[in-house]
Amino acid sequence: MTQAFLFRAAELKDYMIRFFTKLGVPQADAVISADVLLEADLRGVDSHGMIRLNSYYGDRIRAGLIDPLTPVTVIRETATTLTLDGGNGLGHVVSYRAMEACIAKARQTGVSMVTVRNSNHYGIAGYYAMMALPHDMIGISFTNSGPLVAPTYGRKAMIGTNPIAVAAPAGDQAPYVLDMATSIVPIGRITVYDKAGKPIPEGWGINSQGVVTNQPTEVLKGGALMPLGGIDVMRGYKGYGLGLMVDIFSGVLAGSGFGTEVDIKDGKHTARTGHFFAAVQIEAFRPIAEFKKDMDELLNALKDSPKAVGQERIYIHGEKEFEMAARNTRDGVPLIAPVVEVLRKSGKEVGVEFDLVAVGEIDK
Amino acid sequence: MTQAFLFRAAELKDYMIRFFTKLGVPQADAVISADVLLEADLRGVDSHGMIRLNSYYGDRIRAGLIDPLTPVTVIRETATTLTLDGGNGLGHVVSYRAMEACIAKARQTGVSMVTVRNSNHYGIAGYYAMMALPHDMIGISFTNSGPLVAPTYGRKAMIGTNPIAVAAPAGDQAPYVLDMATSIVPIGRITVYDKAGKPIPEGWGINSQGVVTNQPTEVLKGGALMPLGGIDVMRGYKGYGLGLMVDIFSGVLAGSGFGTEVDIKDGKHTARTGHFFAAVQIEAFRPIAEFKKDMDELLNALKDSPKAVGQERIYIHGEKEFEMAARNTRDGVPLIAPVVEVLRKSGKEVGVEFDLVAVGEIDK
Repeated sequence: MTQAFLFRAAELKDYMIRFFTKLGVPQADAVISADVLLEADLRGVDSHGMIRLNSYYGDRIRAGLIDPLTPVTVIRETATTLTLDGGNGLGHVVSYRAMEACIAKARQTGVSMVTVRNSNHYGIAGYYAMMALPHDMIGISFTNSGPLVAPTYGRKAMIGTNPIAVAAPAGDQAPYVLDMATSIVPIGRITVYDKAGKPIPEGWGINSQGVVTNQPTEVLKGGALMPLGGIDVMRGYKGYGLGLMVDIFSGVLAGSGFGTEVDIKDGKHTARTGHFFAAVQIEAFRPIAEFKKDMDELLNALKDSPKAVGQERIYIHGEKEFEMAARNTRDGVPLIAPVVEVLRKSGKEVGVEFDLVAVGEIDK
Repeated sequence: MTQAFLFRAAELKDYMIRFFTKLGVPQADAVISADVLLEADLRGVDSHGMIRLNSYYGDRIRAGLIDPLTPVTVIRETATTLTLDGGNGLGHVVSYRAMEACIAKARQTGVSMVTVRNSNHYGIAGYYAMMALPHDMIGISFTNSGPLVAPTYGRKAMIGTNPIAVAAPAGDQAPYVLDMATSIVPIGRITVYDKAGKPIPEGWGINSQGVVTNQPTEVLKGGALMPLGGIDVMRGYKGYGLGLMVDIFSGVLAGSGFGTEVDIKDGKHTARTGHFFAAVQIEAFRPIAEFKKDMDELLNALKDSPKAVGQERIYIHGEKEFEMAARNTRDGVPLIAPVVEVLRKSGKEVGVEFDLVAVGEIDK
């Protein structure tokens, strides 16, 4: 258990906007970045929220590795497609604009796909997929990321944890929101076990020889994460294939960095992260009311189906996160003490003190 | 090891065409179905090839459960999208036509998506995705299928093994062709262990209580397959989420059957299988030559990366299958003795004797 402080969502967002604008990010762009980061904390995806405010964004802006004033350039455009160059700006900003354009095109044409090259970390993949929901569309969002996952039979990290996000609206039910890394776990989970001095479950990662290890240190030092599925007999080559698919769409199709070229963390290279977005207008295929009715039926059938011994509930993807977001909006967003410390420190450095007053405290 | 006989690919295809036309399938449609089934055997996906000629198709045509003369109906159409009703015809035929239309639309507009409702088993998902390759497009193909996989924390089979296929062209390298069930293994793998009286690897399936079992019989009798990822700690909810995604696109978006409504095997219901196809014109995003050059670089980097201890080769998805297809085209397509027996029996029933002469014999 770790001590966590509860903060009002609106105040956290306001703080992040002040933080970003102080670093030269235009107001409208700061609002976007703040909203994406807040959404992560609201939904309980702490690893992609305010904990990264400085390390992924603030620090890199100050080091000149992210250019907050860069223009977004159109490389190619058709009625259904758009190839954008993010110009090494904030990943959230170009991604938000890309998904907006994608939705607008899908409204006109039925379906649309948009790629982004030369971007940076864009936060939670699900944010952009979910942007399609109010428009009665299915949204898709992929991004590549720095190499952390070894291919099946390999021992070197060659591709990122390359997430897949897909959001589809329902009727009475919460929307389906899949937002998954194509590795079994993100590297942050390994770090947590390492810091706690605990062994990791067999199969999450390999050592520098390509052998499965339960020692988190071995994974972190010269080892690699395993793709979804894990070892060969459990069909890890499928997770490897999905991660590669994400790199083909986000890296190669986008004309961005791919494979080991993405997000080289030497403090010198720009990230060259690539993204892919798609929007599908449901009404182009069938009446939206029928679609939503069938979604409810499918999701309800899954939730109502018989539970395994010892289990009480079957979840739909995104359901836990919607419940968490409602709770955090009502009670306050929990930030664990070490994160608050980091925010205080980086706030001082940037000149925007993190002086929010906690509205409560919990064990997390 | 099982005795297998080698047959010339062209002769097998010709036989299947005669088989289908004898059952009332129009010549042009018989050619399509035969080609899809042959491609499975050529690529080494034996479970989806000629072994199914009678059980999935011939038998069902004769029982009136598949209508080979049904028209394909357009339900909705836009410049980028098409909703087809397969009218309970052969899955291969409507899927081939659907992907042809999808490619034609993507050539005009950049991207296209096509759904099919009220279809039947369509063979290997990868066939349709690969149709995009000669057009310098990325192809995508999903289908739902009869319920075999339990949701995470559940114990009842609620969704199919719902495969995902994605094909992307490369330059000098073989194309990337992912063609994967979203379960760890198909049900056929469990049957193989059951017949051999061998325990299955822990994690492939659960018993009727929702508990992981190594007894294939328990999986087959009231149990279920596990989604890719397997148990909770290995993130099986991701595989469950991918299977559900396929059902949302192939079942719900298509307006077809979904969940437990698909392919009810009581000898009475039509299958109501749904499919989803997409085609992406690469040139709409960036010059095709640049795309192919980067694909080669990415695929080569993966293959050339350091191997795990005891491993000699890293594969790209589809690579083994392309090599197998080249070998089988040259040396003959292996059909194991029990499959040849089944073909002889069903050939007699249908009145098209399986009288092909094997060109060789191997142990398989």
